Amino acid sequence: MAKKTLRIGMIGYRFMGKAHSNGWRQASRFFPLAADLDMHTICGRDPDGVAAAAQELGWRNSATDWTTVVENPEIDVIDITTPNDTHAEIAIAAAKNGKHVLCEKPLALTVEQCREMLNAANQSGIVHMVCHNYRRIPAVAHAKKMIDDGMIGDLFHYRARYAQDWIVDPDFPLVWRLQKNVSGSGAHGDINAHIIDLGRYLVGEFSEICGLMHTFIKYRPLEDSTGKSDGLGAAGSKEMGEVTVDDTAMLIGRFDNGTLANLESTRFALGRKNHITLEVNGSLGSLYFDFEDMNRLKFFDNTLPEDRQGFSDILVTQPGGAHPYVGQWWPPGHIIGYEHTFVHTLADFVSAVAKGTPVQPTFEDGLKNQRVLAAVEESAVNREWVKV
Amino acid sequence: MAKKTLRIGMIGYRFMGKAHSNGWRQASRFFPLAADLDMHTICGRDPDGVAAAAQELGWRNSATDWTTVVENPEIDVIDITTPNDTHAEIAIAAAKNGKHVLCEKPLALTVEQCREMLNAANQSGIVHMVCHNYRRIPAVAHAKKMIDDGMIGDLFHYRARYAQDWIVDPDFPLVWRLQKNVSGSGAHGDINAHIIDLGRYLVGEFSEICGLMHTFIKYRPLEDSTGKSDGLGAAGSKEMGEVTVDDTAMLIGRFDNGTLANLESTRFALGRKNHITLEVNGSLGSLYFDFEDMNRLKFFDNTLPEDRQGFSDILVTQPGGAHPYVGQWWPPGHIIGYEHTFVHTLADFVSAVAKGTPVQPTFEDGLKNQRVLAAVEESAVNREWVKV
Amino acid sequence: MAKKTLRIGMIGYRFMGKAHSNGWRQASRFFPLAADLDMHTICGRDPDGVAAAAQELGWRNSATDWTTVVENPEIDVIDITTPNDTHAEIAIAAAKNGKHVLCEKPLALTVEQCREMLNAANQSGIVHMVCHNYRRIPAVAHAKKMIDDGMIGDLFHYRARYAQDWIVDPDFPLVWRLQKNVSGSGAHGDINAHIIDLGRYLVGEFSEICGLMHTFIKYRPLEDSTGKSDGLGAAGSKEMGEVTVDDTAMLIGRFDNGTLANLESTRFALGRKNHITLEVNGSLGSLYFDFEDMNRLKFFDNTLPEDRQGFSDILVTQPGGAHPYVGQWWPPGHIIGYEHTFVHTLADFVSAVAKGTPVQPTFEDGLKNQRVLAAVEESAVNREWVKV
Amino acid sequence: MAKKTLRIGMIGYRFMGKAHSNGWRQASRFFPLAADLDMHTICGRDPDGVAAAAQELGWRNSATDWTTVVENPEIDVIDITTPNDTHAEIAIAAAKNGKHVLCEKPLALTVEQCREMLNAANQSGIVHMVCHNYRRIPAVAHAKKMIDDGMIGDLFHYRARYAQDWIVDPDFPLVWRLQKNVSGSGAHGDINAHIIDLGRYLVGEFSEICGLMHTFIKYRPLEDSTGKSDGLGAAGSKEMGEVTVDDTAMLIGRFDNGTLANLESTRFALGRKNHITLEVNGSLGSLYFDFEDMNRLKFFDNTLPEDRQGFSDILVTQPGGAHPYVGQWWPPGHIIGYEHTFVHTLADFVSAVAKGTPVQPTFEDGLKNQRVLAAVEESAVNREWVKV
Repeated sequence: MAKKTLRIGMIGYRFMGKAHSNGWRQASRFFPLAADLDMHTICGRDPDGVAAAAQELGWRNSATDWTTVVENPEIDVIDITTPNDTHAEIAIAAAKNGKHVLCEKPLALTVEQCREMLNAANQSGIVHMVCHNYRRIPAVAHAKKMIDDGMIGDLFHYRARYAQDWIVDPDFPLVWRLQKNVSGSGAHGDINAHIIDLGRYLVGEFSEICGLMHTFIKYRPLEDSTGKSDGLGAAGSKEMGEVTVDDTAMLIGRFDNGTLANLESTRFALGRKNHITLEVNGSLGSLYFDFEDMNRLKFFDNTLPEDRQGFSDILVTQPGGAHPYVGQWWPPGHIIGYEHTFVHTLADFVSAVAKGTPVQPTFEDGLKNQRVLAAVEESAVNREWVKV
Repeated sequence: MAKKTLRIGMIGYRFMGKAHSNGWRQASRFFPLAADLDMHTICGRDPDGVAAAAQELGWRNSATDWTTVVENPEIDVIDITTPNDTHAEIAIAAAKNGKHVLCEKPLALTVEQCREMLNAANQSGIVHMVCHNYRRIPAVAHAKKMIDDGMIGDLFHYRARYAQDWIVDPDFPLVWRLQKNVSGSGAHGDINAHIIDLGRYLVGEFSEICGLMHTFIKYRPLEDSTGKSDGLGAAGSKEMGEVTVDDTAMLIGRFDNGTLANLESTRFALGRKNHITLEVNGSLGSLYFDFEDMNRLKFFDNTLPEDRQGFSDILVTQPGGAHPYVGQWWPPGHIIGYEHTFVHTLADFVSAVAKGTPVQPTFEDGLKNQRVLAAVEESAVNREWVKV
Repeated sequence: MAKKTLRIGMIGYRFMGKAHSNGWRQASRFFPLAADLDMHTICGRDPDGVAAAAQELGWRNSATDWTTVVENPEIDVIDITTPNDTHAEIAIAAAKNGKHVLCEKPLALTVEQCREMLNAANQSGIVHMVCHNYRRIPAVAHAKKMIDDGMIGDLFHYRARYAQDWIVDPDFPLVWRLQKNVSGSGAHGDINAHIIDLGRYLVGEFSEICGLMHTFIKYRPLEDSTGKSDGLGAAGSKEMGEVTVDDTAMLIGRFDNGTLANLESTRFALGRKNHITLEVNGSLGSLYFDFEDMNRLKFFDNTLPEDRQGFSDILVTQPGGAHPYVGQWWPPGHIIGYEHTFVHTLADFVSAVAKGTPVQPTFEDGLKNQRVLAAVEESAVNREWVKV
Repeated sequence: MAKKTLRIGMIGYRFMGKAHSNGWRQASRFFPLAADLDMHTICGRDPDGVAAAAQELGWRNSATDWTTVVENPEIDVIDITTPNDTHAEIAIAAAKNGKHVLCEKPLALTVEQCREMLNAANQSGIVHMVCHNYRRIPAVAHAKKMIDDGMIGDLFHYRARYAQDWIVDPDFPLVWRLQKNVSGSGAHGDINAHIIDLGRYLVGEFSEICGLMHTFIKYRPLEDSTGKSDGLGAAGSKEMGEVTVDDTAMLIGRFDNGTLANLESTRFALGRKNHITLEVNGSLGSLYFDFEDMNRLKFFDNTLPEDRQGFSDILVTQPGGAHPYVGQWWPPGHIIGYEHTFVHTLADFVSAVAKGTPVQPTFEDGLKNQRVLAAVEESAVNREWVKV
């Protein structure tokens, strides 16, 4: 029972910082972890902001220079929740200091950065993971198990869409997520990255794709000096700046195993708030998932008697191992939400660190994901099919 | 191939007359009937109206005196689609003239009338049927088969609701359906009769009930002299009349086999247009049906492995006998609608007449239905439990 | 009231012949047509088969040589429901004989054929229409009206899918729909043609596309000598033949007005029986439609107060002109089905013929549709973007 | 900023203890509380069990004698999560010691107990609250606001159902929830109490009811000596005991304001895991809620233009005050779950304690709820209508 204690340092404290902090707090409450957790230090550039965040989110210390955190010998794990352009530098430094690293997605801005991150991680022998939290939605993890168990048969189609609507308003300001130098891309790296990852998770590796990216609104008001950066625009702002990322990205293509792909991500679908829909069609059945009903998985089983066939609406809340993760929470039918996916991710990460074993999705997954992202961008620019 | 020809006389030509006429026209087009059909005569009180209806609905002759129709030796079948207060007299006369009788529901205004109708039918040896058309929705007929096959197990609950919203507006006029002397009752006989019938069909006989009936709007504008009677009120009408029927009727109770009942019918549920929902819960599974999605049946099968259990959304459109009736129409997924339930009813009625065999629901079913209706009225008036 | 009588000759009597015949029978029963209809002659190659069909479907005469029908001076309208390779020849002959022509979709096998058909129609001054019946689903026609009324605003996305599952079984035989010389293409011309047409109807003209077509099962059992051709395979058949059409076709692209397109059609999605889903996203709202719930239209109205926004589930069954077509049928909530779309189509066609005015979709629409189909095929073969 | 600290003592540590502990931990993380929270002591009879629970759930101390906790001068608040038969004694002692009390529902076993609890609370001037957590589901709280704002108009119907399926298996053992002396009643006090409370919250006070209670399975295996009490039965147990509570309870009735009620609670509806459905119909619109989709509220607005009316599927996740509570969590479309309802309840309770103001539902609400529960029991036993 003399469990090891993992001391965590987290870089970043905005939206993802809040979600990860909750995950670190809750993981040990609901999952039998192989290590105790110490929320050691949270790090951000604004001293007051990060100090307040430490208090609010449950961290013992705060820091403003991330290099001191990744070099701190008291710290075992670095959790990166900063904007995308900073992932590579922080992760590589952390790895060189022997810290295990959990990094938000997309892993980095370029394939080259991802490769360097993976190399650094491999050289240090650390445990590394990309936080594609949607893999650990119970319904998605259950879908993966059903596919692996052969219940869907050979796969024909993977069809996914990630639709939001938060920037349809042309007065919404030019936040960092709309600036290529900070975010790398728009809907593509932010949300398309998720359904690409889920495709790799559920189906396999992409082989070739043809992509299309588009920016519907090309100029937006600049943010005011308060620098509100997560969706709160400046009402009176007049000065305009160029949107340098895509509003939507879509692709058709093929996986190595012959499955066909159709993916679409957009921030311009009014009424779709965080609408991730997945459909997988195979020779024995089909699966359908909608994130806005994330506790459900629809399953069509073609092996049942014909008169009873229909998409079964599986409420993925059965305990005792019937459904993954969810038995740690509440009785059947008492649903869980968005934040729980981070708890599941962190619980698995802690387990891997405690045992020193790899945990999917690794930085190699992050690299492969980035290759698909890059292939789509190349395809969209050159208007041609691209091998992944 | 020398098929007998059944010559039909239909009394009434409004809403139900339109639906039945369509049924008579379509039955022979989509079902392999054992008899040819001759739409001989349609009958109504207004000479011009009924002549126009004959032309529009496909009848060879029109008549204004129903007694001449039921006595016409050329006619084999009498189809009664008139208001409820006329059913008994017409049906008894038809039976005495040896005509087979199909009668709209509710069979009559009182239990005594129903008993006389049944006696007359039995004495004449005719084929008699009440047009509870919803029994022949493919999804409902399939539910019945699944229950009979034991797939739901022993039944615990029958829960049904029939909700509409067409008289929520207090300016809606006092049409015949709101006058007790013509209609017998309001929501109760009009729509509660349907879900009582479906309870008897799917579960068995009611043993005792406690009912509640209520009229939300007690006075309404009288119709103008044009006597528009099916929902088109007179805009400028000022004179008011008393609503003498219920706007809603509900009951809790028990079936003979121990199943519990909860039924509710209302014309005061905004947004519910023709919303019939049924749920049956048993020891092995559950069924759920919603008429506004009438091509679907939801089935929860508790015998499946736990991780795959969920309400299965069966699209009841599979041909080749997998699903009842629907294979006569279109390929899978090409849905059918309201009017088809009449075609199915008439096709079965014709088959029974051709063979001289009974066809459910008979006048005896109509009588038993009326006993439940009467028990609910008695219970609502006396505020006590009533044995059926 | 001395209405003209239109005398109809229909070529073909299989699945579409059954659907059209029902449409011809029902149109005058439910719609106030400007002309009376005479179902004069049905035509097919098998004398016994077509004679039986005449009896079953309600035609006065049958014929085995279509040339005699299109030349028959008694006939005013030719309705073409034969396989796709015969459309052009029949339609051109009919037009040259001055007959008004209704033709099943896709209009023909090639753009060139379509152009010749349009020219022939224009030269004769006839009324011509392609039977894209899904335009006249009340929910779809209502969507069109809402878009035209500006309720969706400027359009960003048109996303459509047509999914079926009837040939997933590798033992399903090589019916005519799987043979390129007869059908022209597979899922592409059969069902992708529908959602391309709906895109042109709801959004506008396609400007460029990149397509992908694929055949999952490349060899199938030959049919036996009975030549069953609409889905009933020969159980014991051993001899195999090559599938020469696509099982699935998808495309991404752009419309002239800047809207982005993502279309996918497949016959390999188990559980999707006739699953047409459409989503349109604009600057003011979104629309969603699913054919398996064809009486409903989902509408997100971004102009409502934020706390009340949500996809509204419009049951498109309101009479009195609130919703198109459906008021001719039954009261609110009493749903209609697949076959009604043909009734609506024929009613509008009859009205156009009676008045001598064009009726969408014309052969020009059929031609434009074929240009998109051809562009997708070219794109799929050459693996490049193609201007439409 | 010198906030007061509230020191909490919680009695009980099973299912509800886990849910409340999570609430206490999370409330200060997501809501700007007017007081700091100190999770001071958790109390249970089993020393080892409660000590482990303290560690797992985040309490500083554990205790085995609840009297020492309610008398502890360091403690400000007593939170009662024990079985129902202990509520009254603990709450009264706590009140007499001047502790603010939050008590799980149902408030007690009898009306008399509830009255004593309310009196004790009033005499001490403490803040008192019953934990009817479902009032603070954002969708339910939003429904309340819409009703209060007049958007539904005058109410006609309140229809609610709470359905579960966890004891359909006859081998499920005789746990405390099935023993009247401990639990007071079965489905009635456990889950019917919730939808009665929601009726009082959304509609008003009940005036009269007629109830029905039934036990489908009258004898069950006794639990083994390990005394597992929350649903984990003893597999090999042979000895049987009598089930002394109801498996289902239903009622029809009226509210003071004339609204009609139809409520049903059951543990015998296979496939319904924690299925709370509510429907409210009024003169201007309707509301519908299903707990298994707890982030959604369906709203039919009869004041919209007729062609656009339909049940609107409001995703109740809009921040900035548009929707209650939920803005404290995640962005739109990122759903929350069951446990969050406790966080909201505790946050409001803390706010009330800090300000010394009442917070609904008070013990008076608990008393009124108990009166309805008692009326239903009396009605079910005596088979008659009962005034509340």
